[in-house]
Amino acid sequence: MLDVLPMPLAAAGEAAEVLFDLFLVLLAAKAGDEIFKRIGQPTVVGEILAGVIVGPSVLGIVDLGETLEVFAEIGVILLLFWVGLETRFSDLRAVGAVAGLVAMLGVVFPFAGGVTLGVLRDEPTATMIFLAAALVATSVGITSAVLTEFGAVKTRPGRTILGAAVVDDILAILVLAVAVGIAQEGSVDVGGIALTAGLAVAFVAFVALGGGALLSRRPQILTAPHFADSPLLPAVLLCFGLAVVAGKIGLAGIIGAFLAGMVIAESSERENVENEVGVLYAFFPPFFFASIGIQLDLGALTDLDSLTLVLGITALAVVTKLVGGYLGARRALGHRDALVVGVGMVPRGEVGIIVASVGAAEGVIGDDLFGVIVAMAVLTTLIVPPVLRRLLDGRPDIDVEHLGRPGMQNP
Amino acid sequence: MLDVLPMPLAAAGEAAEVLFDLFLVLLAAKAGDEIFKRIGQPTVVGEILAGVIVGPSVLGIVDLGETLEVFAEIGVILLLFWVGLETRFSDLRAVGAVAGLVAMLGVVFPFAGGVTLGVLRDEPTATMIFLAAALVATSVGITSAVLTEFGAVKTRPGRTILGAAVVDDILAILVLAVAVGIAQEGSVDVGGIALTAGLAVAFVAFVALGGGALLSRRPQILTAPHFADSPLLPAVLLCFGLAVVAGKIGLAGIIGAFLAGMVIAESSERENVENEVGVLYAFFPPFFFASIGIQLDLGALTDLDSLTLVLGITALAVVTKLVGGYLGARRALGHRDALVVGVGMVPRGEVGIIVASVGAAEGVIGDDLFGVIVAMAVLTTLIVPPVLRRLLDGRPDIDVEHLGRPGMQNP
Repeated sequence: MLDVLPMPLAAAGEAAEVLFDLFLVLLAAKAGDEIFKRIGQPTVVGEILAGVIVGPSVLGIVDLGETLEVFAEIGVILLLFWVGLETRFSDLRAVGAVAGLVAMLGVVFPFAGGVTLGVLRDEPTATMIFLAAALVATSVGITSAVLTEFGAVKTRPGRTILGAAVVDDILAILVLAVAVGIAQEGSVDVGGIALTAGLAVAFVAFVALGGGALLSRRPQILTAPHFADSPLLPAVLLCFGLAVVAGKIGLAGIIGAFLAGMVIAESSERENVENEVGVLYAFFPPFFFASIGIQLDLGALTDLDSLTLVLGITALAVVTKLVGGYLGARRALGHRDALVVGVGMVPRGEVGIIVASVGAAEGVIGDDLFGVIVAMAVLTTLIVPPVLRRLLDGRPDIDVEHLGRPGMQNP
Repeated sequence: MLDVLPMPLAAAGEAAEVLFDLFLVLLAAKAGDEIFKRIGQPTVVGEILAGVIVGPSVLGIVDLGETLEVFAEIGVILLLFWVGLETRFSDLRAVGAVAGLVAMLGVVFPFAGGVTLGVLRDEPTATMIFLAAALVATSVGITSAVLTEFGAVKTRPGRTILGAAVVDDILAILVLAVAVGIAQEGSVDVGGIALTAGLAVAFVAFVALGGGALLSRRPQILTAPHFADSPLLPAVLLCFGLAVVAGKIGLAGIIGAFLAGMVIAESSERENVENEVGVLYAFFPPFFFASIGIQLDLGALTDLDSLTLVLGITALAVVTKLVGGYLGARRALGHRDALVVGVGMVPRGEVGIIVASVGAAEGVIGDDLFGVIVAMAVLTTLIVPPVLRRLLDGRPDIDVEHLGRPGMQNP
């Protein structure tokens, strides 16, 4: 029983240090959560700011290591799994055309904005494309969390955002594939990109059509006595399994988790799974939100040029996505709901950071620009929740019974 | 939303690979769990064997990385937290004297055995002491899990084992401190070791007396409206917080978690916490058991010398601990319960492996001996559950309502 030793002994010490970091992150995130709940603000903002505080920007006591990354990844997987549980395929089909248009315009406008900025700054082509890709990517994790917190997942704009996010992810994959191709080879591998796109679409269609049909006909798969007494274990394995498969074919893991949630939502076990997964849902996602804040390094952004660039890119990111999403939804949903959709697509969150990391790994995004993009991703993420809250306030179709995030704080 | 990319891109790929490994481990552990439940055998054995199968011994598809180690650590922390929730301070006080004797003799006999073996094999002093330390350390995690599975935590031998485990840990810390001192300096730092011992005793006494008294007088600390709506979050933070503090002062983290559980057990929130922590309890511990199996590398033990040594050391480990524990408990508990105590102290589990790792890091345990000690730790761990099951079968004081591990499979 000697997990941690009084002397500096490497073997047992590392896991203990990591555990200590995780404890600090959870403590900080929950404190931020609690403070923001008390002042009536979206709790995700409190959790992200907690990450900013314990991260390199302020206290510098926690770094983003492998384990914290995995906790964050599981957090966002569970977030999307939860949102999937709240979503029916028929809901998405109903908003399909609008969602497709929203996703399309929500990619085109930011991409054009990124290219324009790149040309104005006289960046090399590869850098320009990566800048555009970072502006394209929407973080459905953040928006989903905010929609869930406000009980707005089942509203029409909420569903439109979710549907658009799935399409957005497929488009964003293609943009990034183009960016990586240009950075690596100076050209685009059309065949490879078409293959990726085909696989992604086939996966979504296969799970959505096949899985839903199978579980609605044979719900006992989730509770078969030869497998488990409770549906939670098969549900969690399905969620992680589809996340892993989605990842293997180049899609985001969270898309697989979202589909897994939707598949289970079609079965009669939905409520049981939701009740039992609540604790996991309360435990992991705070690591996701805090880790976004931890990735920000304000110290690297003190000169005037960087600050101007951050504000400029952030404004560009907000305006282009908002306009794209709004125009895509305007005709079908009307002014106010189209505004909700446009705002809901704005957060770049972890996705913008990942694109910037890939660009840095390819050697086409320098340290300065990397810091700027991360700041843009965090700022767009912090701006949206309060705005979305104002826009959703007082809507008759908000499901007040589901207000607040479920789990630990709201059992 | 681009967590995983079609190209080999380092940044996002690592977390996804780790996640995939975790998924495989959970899947394998739960399959082993299910199979052993169906054949009526202790499920922890199934989970450990699942680890042996996915680990280097058989398939070699999973390595023990940082994140899996942290998951395993959280698993064993939650295990002991759960056992703490089932334990009252008064229970431990009632068995205090016997538990102390059991721990003492359960350390002395294996230590003597290890030293004897070292002398016979003509090992250097430092190696000899480490060998003895590896034979000393009891894995209360394994035994607790088995006791919980059989609903035997609240039996008299069950409580004696738990009490002995706390004392055993303090003694084992001292033995290991001596071993490290000899390996590093060739001598023993008596002052430093006394300080460690004093800190450990003070910590246990402070938490046990102070925390219990505080929470039994002011249970609202766990549910104060300014902190959280549900007691789970404060409970989890207390559990991890005390685990971290215990680790910092040189005790095992799980001792802190065990004390946290006992402190909460004294409050009126015990049942709420138990209900809510069940899902976490079902999620993390399988990683702990599987990781024990993953650390075994049967491929390194194929020559006759190694095999003979493994069997010899395992027999020595079983006999010395069994005799020490039995003799310590014989007078107070009678033959049959003393046998339960003796057998219950036998598993070396992760603790034997940690001691061997420390010895390897100090350069006094070679690769061969390391593999042998790990095999001893795994074998003692696999032998005990079925034997304990036989010994406990049909006892009138087994709490059948609590049979089976709680959580996912047994909600």
